Amino acid sequence: MPELRKDPVTGRWVIISTARGKRPSDFKPDATPVPDSGNCPFCYGNESMTPAEICAVRRDGSAPNTPGWSVRVVPNKFPSLGIDDHLIKKGVGMYDLMSGFGAHEVIIETPDHHRPVDQLSLSEIKDILTIYQNRVEDLHRDIRFRYILIFRNEGRESGASLYHPHSQLIATPVTPKRVKEELMGAEAYYKTKERCVFCDMINQEKDSQQRIVYENDHFISFCPFASRFPFELCLLPKNHEPDFYASRQRIDDMALALKMTMEKLHTALNRPQYNFIIHSAPNLFPRRGYWHTIRDDYHWHFEIMPRLTRVAGFEWGTGFYINPTAPEDAAKFLREVIVHA
Amino acid sequence: MPELRKDPVTGRWVIISTARGKRPSDFKPDATPVPDSGNCPFCYGNESMTPAEICAVRRDGSAPNTPGWSVRVVPNKFPSLGIDDHLIKKGVGMYDLMSGFGAHEVIIETPDHHRPVDQLSLSEIKDILTIYQNRVEDLHRDIRFRYILIFRNEGRESGASLYHPHSQLIATPVTPKRVKEELMGAEAYYKTKERCVFCDMINQEKDSQQRIVYENDHFISFCPFASRFPFELCLLPKNHEPDFYASRQRIDDMALALKMTMEKLHTALNRPQYNFIIHSAPNLFPRRGYWHTIRDDYHWHFEIMPRLTRVAGFEWGTGFYINPTAPEDAAKFLREVIVHA
Repeated sequence: MPELRKDPVTGRWVIISTARGKRPSDFKPDATPVPDSGNCPFCYGNESMTPAEICAVRRDGSAPNTPGWSVRVVPNKFPSLGIDDHLIKKGVGMYDLMSGFGAHEVIIETPDHHRPVDQLSLSEIKDILTIYQNRVEDLHRDIRFRYILIFRNEGRESGASLYHPHSQLIATPVTPKRVKEELMGAEAYYKTKERCVFCDMINQEKDSQQRIVYENDHFISFCPFASRFPFELCLLPKNHEPDFYASRQRIDDMALALKMTMEKLHTALNRPQYNFIIHSAPNLFPRRGYWHTIRDDYHWHFEIMPRLTRVAGFEWGTGFYINPTAPEDAAKFLREVIVHA
Repeated sequence: MPELRKDPVTGRWVIISTARGKRPSDFKPDATPVPDSGNCPFCYGNESMTPAEICAVRRDGSAPNTPGWSVRVVPNKFPSLGIDDHLIKKGVGMYDLMSGFGAHEVIIETPDHHRPVDQLSLSEIKDILTIYQNRVEDLHRDIRFRYILIFRNEGRESGASLYHPHSQLIATPVTPKRVKEELMGAEAYYKTKERCVFCDMINQEKDSQQRIVYENDHFISFCPFASRFPFELCLLPKNHEPDFYASRQRIDDMALALKMTMEKLHTALNRPQYNFIIHSAPNLFPRRGYWHTIRDDYHWHFEIMPRLTRVAGFEWGTGFYINPTAPEDAAKFLREVIVHA
């Protein structure tokens, strides 16, 4: 019998409908073909093909915009938002318009064109996560930005246009709708319970064990109760932390949890295409000293969404999602995959 | 310069970013391959492969579940929601669960496996729209249903699993989130202006002419100001009508507007894959006599969404959409395509 499950944060309903019999083993997509690295703007020696770098990890002391880096951050050559634009708001008749002010950066995760993220070493993943945090910290200083989203598109189905391993960052002048929904849901929950909804979820997941995929001292990953997609994953700190940037001291466990979770996913499903995003508390206050406030009601997290099914008319029309794989089955399948750090 | 545009109904922001230079002519997807009709459950002679039919257009007086029909409605063989389940609501720890009560039907639009909808005659399209309205009218009688969505997935990218031309209907026990957002937005607008936001949009579109694609006496189609996707279209009655079911007397113009708009889209973009949905006022009241209330604040419409770009991490993480084609350019392109009814 299909089930409707409600996401406790956003209130979004999901239909878990296994009638079509999609079992975890039905999702073995062909491995994505590896395009040639011929003229890739993210490879060594092609640094001049990107806009000038913003920062990089360069342990060999090499000069900016030359080879020698292990992680490199550059402005997106085709930015969806432009940092040079002024923030202008105006009406067009009954419609509202804003200039496309914002930042759009690319984090090139490795110089190796052919090295998917699940094959990176722990220290390489730590470097990438540290760079994420540095960029967020830097951009937080510009109070015109309300929100900074880090995300990764892997594979054509997920919207990636370049094969070379990379993630992206977009800073926006408004708090995005999806984030607002989470913030409002978490706030409403906090008002009733005086507890963080994410902390409560972690406790319930630990009690039931049914949906947990991986756990270490400070991080946990599980398939959410109301997963929208087969093998959807949530990865987050076990202690209450509103802000991704604040998780610096736990970065070893964060990198390990991300590596182990992604390796399980890649092994189980033969390297599926996926998106991941980081949701963190928005830039409501300057982040320094006196103004820095801890939010009790929000908890930062990764959302990892394999692209195994397609979003169709029903989802577009309703905002419901139909998920043909029970999260309990997906989690069991992933738990049983043995991987090594 | 990229622009942020706000949807006047839902408040959703869209980034119109033409930096990557996606001009209308860049979207000429390959025509979808036509799978063989060998064992298609929607073809003549295979009526026993579907569950027993709910209704059909049979001008030759042929018996149910035999050939002779021109439009045929059957329950979905793999329903996402089941009509036989009781509506049960319960908690699972902190989580909320509901039984998957609902209806899921398939409208087989033509017996011809190889006849895409844009090639159907006006009278065939009228038959399909009439069947939609009959099904909605019938299901409205069951007060357990809060909402009935009709949608169409065309092509694999759009989520279709069968090639044979068909659309679907899902009736749900809760008003879907996306519909609620529209209802709340439209209601808020009405409270301030005492006018329907959709009627105001139609007026502004008619004044500016920039985004109009097609218009006849009673229907109009245009590319919305805050289009999420390249070549997105909205098609709706020019007079205020909250309820799709109530548009019966204007069905000739509705069929003509749908045919002309879809033909323009198919000609311009070489038969793109797409989703369409019908958004109508929900089943708040029994629809007969005394209780039948006209909503002044909602206006039913088609949303037509070609699948030319992919939804990526940024969209999933923010609820923003990045659209690489200005709706004014898309509309101009479609306006200039000459088609005949």
